[in-house]
Amino acid sequence: MDVVQDVAAVFATLPMFPVFNACHYTLMILTTRYDTGSLALSRSNPLANWVASMIACFGGYILADLLLGHSVLSFLAHPEDVVLASAIWYLLFYCPKDLFYKIISILPLKLVIAALKETARVRKLVAGIGAAAKVYPHSLLAQVIVGVAKACGNEFLLNFEQAVRGVWKPDINAIMQPSFSIKACVVGAVMIILGRSDVLMGISQEMVVLAVSLWLISVAVSMKAFHADDPFKPVENLFSPFIFGSADSLPADAHHHPAAPEPSPAPKPPSGRRRGKAAKAD
Amino acid sequence: MDVVQDVAAVFATLPMFPVFNACHYTLMILTTRYDTGSLALSRSNPLANWVASMIACFGGYILADLLLGHSVLSFLAHPEDVVLASAIWYLLFYCPKDLFYKIISILPLKLVIAALKETARVRKLVAGIGAAAKVYPHSLLAQVIVGVAKACGNEFLLNFEQAVRGVWKPDINAIMQPSFSIKACVVGAVMIILGRSDVLMGISQEMVVLAVSLWLISVAVSMKAFHADDPFKPVENLFSPFIFGSADSLPADAHHHPAAPEPSPAPKPPSGRRRGKAAKAD
Amino acid sequence: MDVVQDVAAVFATLPMFPVFNACHYTLMILTTRYDTGSLALSRSNPLANWVASMIACFGGYILADLLLGHSVLSFLAHPEDVVLASAIWYLLFYCPKDLFYKIISILPLKLVIAALKETARVRKLVAGIGAAAKVYPHSLLAQVIVGVAKACGNEFLLNFEQAVRGVWKPDINAIMQPSFSIKACVVGAVMIILGRSDVLMGISQEMVVLAVSLWLISVAVSMKAFHADDPFKPVENLFSPFIFGSADSLPADAHHHPAAPEPSPAPKPPSGRRRGKAAKAD
Repeated sequence: MDVVQDVAAVFATLPMFPVFNACHYTLMILTTRYDTGSLALSRSNPLANWVASMIACFGGYILADLLLGHSVLSFLAHPEDVVLASAIWYLLFYCPKDLFYKIISILPLKLVIAALKETARVRKLVAGIGAAAKVYPHSLLAQVIVGVAKACGNEFLLNFEQAVRGVWKPDINAIMQPSFSIKACVVGAVMIILGRSDVLMGISQEMVVLAVSLWLISVAVSMKAFHADDPFKPVENLFSPFIFGSADSLPADAHHHPAAPEPSPAPKPPSGRRRGKAAKAD
Repeated sequence: MDVVQDVAAVFATLPMFPVFNACHYTLMILTTRYDTGSLALSRSNPLANWVASMIACFGGYILADLLLGHSVLSFLAHPEDVVLASAIWYLLFYCPKDLFYKIISILPLKLVIAALKETARVRKLVAGIGAAAKVYPHSLLAQVIVGVAKACGNEFLLNFEQAVRGVWKPDINAIMQPSFSIKACVVGAVMIILGRSDVLMGISQEMVVLAVSLWLISVAVSMKAFHADDPFKPVENLFSPFIFGSADSLPADAHHHPAAPEPSPAPKPPSGRRRGKAAKAD
Repeated sequence: MDVVQDVAAVFATLPMFPVFNACHYTLMILTTRYDTGSLALSRSNPLANWVASMIACFGGYILADLLLGHSVLSFLAHPEDVVLASAIWYLLFYCPKDLFYKIISILPLKLVIAALKETARVRKLVAGIGAAAKVYPHSLLAQVIVGVAKACGNEFLLNFEQAVRGVWKPDINAIMQPSFSIKACVVGAVMIILGRSDVLMGISQEMVVLAVSLWLISVAVSMKAFHADDPFKPVENLFSPFIFGSADSLPADAHHHPAAPEPSPAPKPPSGRRRGKAAKAD
C-alpha cells in the first residue's frame, strides 16, 4: 500500500507542461479539424480557425473563469502554453504533406496521446474543484460544476467555438447529450471531494486522483481502440424509466398542448449531427 | 398611518424561504413546462430539463451577477433553495398521475401562488437595486437595470434557457416584447430609488415596497383571473406616436434600403449579408 | 522634433467628451440604422432599438469589461455619456423631417466626424492596453486583445447587438471577416506596447499614439471619400498562401469528410420561426 501511495504522490506532482498539455491540445484541435467545414475555413480564414482552436484548447479555463466571475483571458497568463497550442495548431492544419496529422493518426500513438490527455483532464478536474472550494466552501454542487467545466470545457463551449467559425447548430449541446467524459468527471469529482474529507477513511486524495485517472484512461483508450460503448448507458437505461418515467408516461396535456403537437423527443432541425458521432462515422 | 408603517415594516422582514420562494419556483418551472417540447424532453433528457428549470428559477441571480461581474453560480451558495427548486421540478414533471400539476392548476390556488410569487419578486427588485447601488452609487440607470434583471431574470434569459433545451428562437426576446412584469418593475425600481432619498417626504422605503408589491400582486392576479390586459398598453399607444413617430413617419430611405423593402415591423433577414457591405452596396 | 513632441503631448490630453465621443456615437448609431430592419424596428420597438444602439456605442467597454472579469455595466458610471449617446440616438431615428440624418450625411461633415471618431478609437485602444497590462503584465497577447476589444467592441458584438433586435446571422462575425479597423488596431496596439518599452528608442508613447491616430484617420477618411480598398489586402494575399497554404493544398480527407462535401466556406443558417406566432398558428 505504501508503494501505491508513493506512486500516487509522484503522479500528483507530474508536470503537465509540455508533454501532457501537448497531448490535450493535439486531441482538441483534432476534434476541431474533424468538424464541419474546418479544413476549408483553415484556408479562407486562418484567424477564425486559430481562435476556434484556442477556444477548444483552453475552453476549460475560459468556462471555469466565467462561472467564477474571473477574467476569461486568464489562460493567456501562461504564454508558453499558448505558443505550444499554436504550434500544434499550425502543424495540424498547415504541415507540408499533412505529415503531422498522418503521424498522430497512427493508432498506437493515438492511444498514448489519449491516455496522457486524460491525465491532464483529471489534473484540471482537481484544480477546478479547488478553485470553486475557495469561493463556495459549502456548496458541493458548485465544486462539481466548476470541476467538470474545467475538465470538459471544450465540450460545453462547442456551440460557441463553432459560432466563431460561422457554424451554428442550436439543436444540440453538451448538456443535452453529455459525453462519457462529462459523466465520468461528475463521478470523479464526487469521489475527489469525498477523498478530501474523512468519508473514505485511509484513502488519501492523491490515491483517489490516481484511481480516477486510471479509470478515465482505460475507458478512453478502450473506446478509441475497440469502439467500446459508453459504460454509463446500461445503468441509465435501467434506472431512468423508474426515476423519470418513460416516454409512454407523458402527462396527457403533452398531446393537447399547441406547442408540442407530437411526443417526438428531440427537436431535430437541419442536418446537424453531433461532432463526436460524425467523426466516428468516418 | 402608524399601523400602515408597522405592516410595511413586518412585510419587509417576512422570510422568503420556503413558502414565497417555492411559489416562485413553481411558476417558473411551470413556464418551462408549457414551452415547446419540454414535456417530451423531460423523458429523453432529464439533465437538460433540470438545468433549464434551474436557469428559469435562478435566472435573476445569474443575470444580476453577470451584469455586476460576480460569479454566476452565487445562487448555489444557498443549497436549501436549490434542493427546494429541484424537488418542485421533480414533482412538476415526474409526479405519479401528474398529481402535483393538477393540484396547482386549480385556479384559486394558482392565484395565491401568483400573489406570493410577486412578493418574492419585489424583494429581489430591492436586493438588486441595493447590490447595484454599492457598485454604481451615482448611476440610477444601473440600479434600475440590475434591479429589474434580478426581479425578471428568467424572462431576459429565456433564449439562453431554451438553447439549453435545444430550442432556438432568435427572432424574439424580452427586450423586444417586455412583459407587464418588466415594465412594472422598471416603474417600481424608480419608486423605490426615490423612496430611498428624500424626494417622497414622509414615505419610508418600506411603505414604497409595500405599495409596489400590492400593485404587482393585484395586476398579476387580475391578469391570471380575468385575463386582464397589460395596463401599460393604453399609455404606450397614446404617447409612443408622439415621441417615437408612427410607422407612417418612417424616413424615406427606409423604403429604398435593400434590406428593408417594407415597413413591416418584424425583421426577417435569414438571407443575411453583412451590415457594412450592405450599406456600401447602396 | 520638440514641436512634434509638444503636439503629441497636447493630443494625448485632449478631452474626448463631448465632441469626440459624440462623433463616435453618431457613427455607431448610424451603422445600426443602416442595418437590416432597423428603421421599421425604431417605430415598433423603440426600447430594443435604444438598447441595440447603446450596445453599439459602448460595445468596447462592455467587451473589455467582460474579458477582464469586470462588471459589464461600467459604462453607466458616466451618465453624461449615456445621455449624449441617447440624445444622438433620438435625433438620428426620430428627428422631424429626418433633418439630423440629412445634415450628418453631407460628405465633408461625415469625413470630419470619421476623423474625430478615429481619434476617440485610438484613445480607447490605449486605455484597453493599460487596463489589461494591470491584470496581465507579462502577456502581450492579452494586452493586444483587450485593447482591440475596447477600440472595436461594437464590431465583435455585432451578432449580439443584432440579436437584441431579433436579427440572427450566425454565418458571419468580426473574427471571420475582420475589418480594416480591427487589423489596424492590432498593428497599432503592438506599436503602442513597443513604444511603452525601450524598443523604439527616443520615440515616446505619446508620439506613437499620435502616429497611429494619424494613420487610422487618413485611411478611414480616404476609404469613406474615395472608397479606397483595405490596405492590408495586398499584403495578406501575398503572404497568406505561403504561410497557410491555398485552397488547392487542402489535405485529401477534406473532400471525403461527410460534413464538408464542398470547400465552400460559409454555411447557411436555418430558417427559424418565432415562438409565439408559431404556437398560435398551429
